[in-house]
Amino acid sequence: TPFGDHLRITAPALLLTLSSSPRPTLAGKLNRGLSVVDTLRILRGDNITDEELFHARILGWTVEWVSSNCPLPRVLFFARETSSHAITRDPIQLQAFFLVADDIMDSSYTRRGQPCWFRKENVGMVAINDGFILESSVYIILKKYFKKTQYYVELLELYHEVTFQTELGQLLDLITAPEDNVDLSRFSPAKHQFIVIFKTAYYSFYLPVALAMLMAGVKNENAYSQARDILIPLGEYFQVQDDYLDCYGAPEVIGKIGTDIQDNKCSWLVNQALVRITPEQRKILDQHYGKKDSKAEAAVKQLYIDIDIESVYKAYEEKSYTEISAMIAKVDESTGVKKEVFTEYMNKIYKRTK
Amino acid sequence: TPFGDHLRITAPALLLTLSSSPRPTLAGKLNRGLSVVDTLRILRGDNITDEELFHARILGWTVEWVSSNCPLPRVLFFARETSSHAITRDPIQLQAFFLVADDIMDSSYTRRGQPCWFRKENVGMVAINDGFILESSVYIILKKYFKKTQYYVELLELYHEVTFQTELGQLLDLITAPEDNVDLSRFSPAKHQFIVIFKTAYYSFYLPVALAMLMAGVKNENAYSQARDILIPLGEYFQVQDDYLDCYGAPEVIGKIGTDIQDNKCSWLVNQALVRITPEQRKILDQHYGKKDSKAEAAVKQLYIDIDIESVYKAYEEKSYTEISAMIAKVDESTGVKKEVFTEYMNKIYKRTK
Ligand SMILES: [Mg+2]
Ligand SMILES: [Mg+2]
Ligand SMILES: [Mg+2]
Ligand SMILES: [Mg+2]
Ligand SMILES: [Mg+2]
Ligand SMILES: [Mg+2]
Repeated sequence: TPFGDHLRITAPALLLTLSSSPRPTLAGKLNRGLSVVDTLRILRGDNITDEELFHARILGWTVEWVSSNCPLPRVLFFARETSSHAITRDPIQLQAFFLVADDIMDSSYTRRGQPCWFRKENVGMVAINDGFILESSVYIILKKYFKKTQYYVELLELYHEVTFQTELGQLLDLITAPEDNVDLSRFSPAKHQFIVIFKTAYYSFYLPVALAMLMAGVKNENAYSQARDILIPLGEYFQVQDDYLDCYGAPEVIGKIGTDIQDNKCSWLVNQALVRITPEQRKILDQHYGKKDSKAEAAVKQLYIDIDIESVYKAYEEKSYTEISAMIAKVDESTGVKKEVFTEYMNKIYKRTK
Repeated sequence: TPFGDHLRITAPALLLTLSSSPRPTLAGKLNRGLSVVDTLRILRGDNITDEELFHARILGWTVEWVSSNCPLPRVLFFARETSSHAITRDPIQLQAFFLVADDIMDSSYTRRGQPCWFRKENVGMVAINDGFILESSVYIILKKYFKKTQYYVELLELYHEVTFQTELGQLLDLITAPEDNVDLSRFSPAKHQFIVIFKTAYYSFYLPVALAMLMAGVKNENAYSQARDILIPLGEYFQVQDDYLDCYGAPEVIGKIGTDIQDNKCSWLVNQALVRITPEQRKILDQHYGKKDSKAEAAVKQLYIDIDIESVYKAYEEKSYTEISAMIAKVDESTGVKKEVFTEYMNKIYKRTK
């Protein structure tokens, strides 16, 4: 190819040449991708065919690939396998679409213990274009494997919609909490909720289920809105939990040491603190939040203890669980979706410690 | 909106709030956007309806917006106007999709006399996400105005395809000619051709015509391949001309002072020189190309004179004109496309001085 060795260096775009490479290993939990397969199994039951599973795996990979750590040839490679291990869980160093760009915009140094893609030698800002290529590649895959399906247009529109929502969430996050300019007056629980819903919940929770529903032939608009009404709050809860674990999770269990306080993250914890603290405590927070300094971080953590933020979290968790359970109980299965899809998710997520 | 004033600062994304703003003015020649309208007029002749023109203008804007200087609300704003001046030609300072990212990747400072979007205060790397949002917005427009058409899927696929081609061209350009690492051994006329075809010709030449063909109801695959076979070489010629004018155009006519030599650009001129020079001349070129230094630039320009590159260009221009004219003469109009579409393009482009 005219890209020669450079392309091999400048991968994610190695997608063009690598399809014959040895079996790669992958990082991340791949929950989003696996959800497509799991949801389709629930919706189709024993009628599910190998062909359907094959296609569900491809869609699973397109989700992971937008959101996680795997480039295109690997998607194809795994999709061709038929064993239930077609989606595996070991580490590689490539990273995808949103994450490549996110790391540049956040000036991050590492992701999952590896240098960020744009930090590698000979990559730099070319990573931006690599991100665009990864995105484009999703549509190439969709055309190749789904053009002949009844739900091809809906598939394309779903990806367009979810991508756009994610970008809006990303935008609000970036302008609310730039790492180099701490200003807590920009934060609020409402803004946190908007960011979380748009930046995370749509692509992590709604997308995989909606993909499986399209595959299962669900056409009723109400089925999709019921799914959205449950999965968006569920995704919101998931991210709140992530914010909570960043501060209170055991590093040896969550696999990292939390840095949200030092990184000026618009975390659920700080937003809840902001609406609960006295003017004096607010001064402490303004002074210490977002500082790359472990003493400042300790002061913020002490403030969280002083206002007993853990109890606030437990109450939120209970309330969220109760509300979402009530919504699931009311799901109208005649629209084509099943309660079990959502209870499966609930069980995986609630009270997790990692 | 939860974006508040920040969104207004962080535009391109002002697309979300600006639709009621006063009539904006626009930069750039808008040739690509206007081509959609012009081509549809040729294909539909006197049968063309106001409705069709309205939709052609919307598609024209989506093209400009991917490639030129205008954000979404302005697209919508103009599309709603029905006068033939719905596409106008004055300056604004916003910039689109590919260009936003290109300027970051090239570390550029200005575009059309304005600071690059990412150089503006409070923008910075958020510009990457703005680029993604601009891209996403194209699909929102397409869904809003074209979902009910017969050619909606083809429209989406055309955009996906052309975007991907452009990104591949961009990638090869970036890894072949990084501004900070001059290595002429990476250059070759074949690589130049690939870059030009993928990075420029697809979206600037094939895309507008293919869009109009879809609107006109052209379904025959041969019509599209004939169009591609003519428009890709035409786009290639256009870019060669651009490279030529960068060095030999009159600054007061082309509106800028060329910087390709100082910027280490993989220009047609340097690639032609590389295959024509002696080993001694090669040493001169290696020493002076891509240096931010007007003496070095003058040495390269002298070398171009020594090998009479202008004659090489004139010969290329003649050959290109003859070959493309011959292809146009052979166009099979029964497929649904018309020769006039291509002769119009030829007449606008050949022997242009700006
Ligand atoms: Mg980040
Ligand atoms: Mg981020
Ligand atoms: Mg976190
Ligand atoms: Mg540039
Ligand atoms: Mg460039
Ligand atoms: Mg030029």
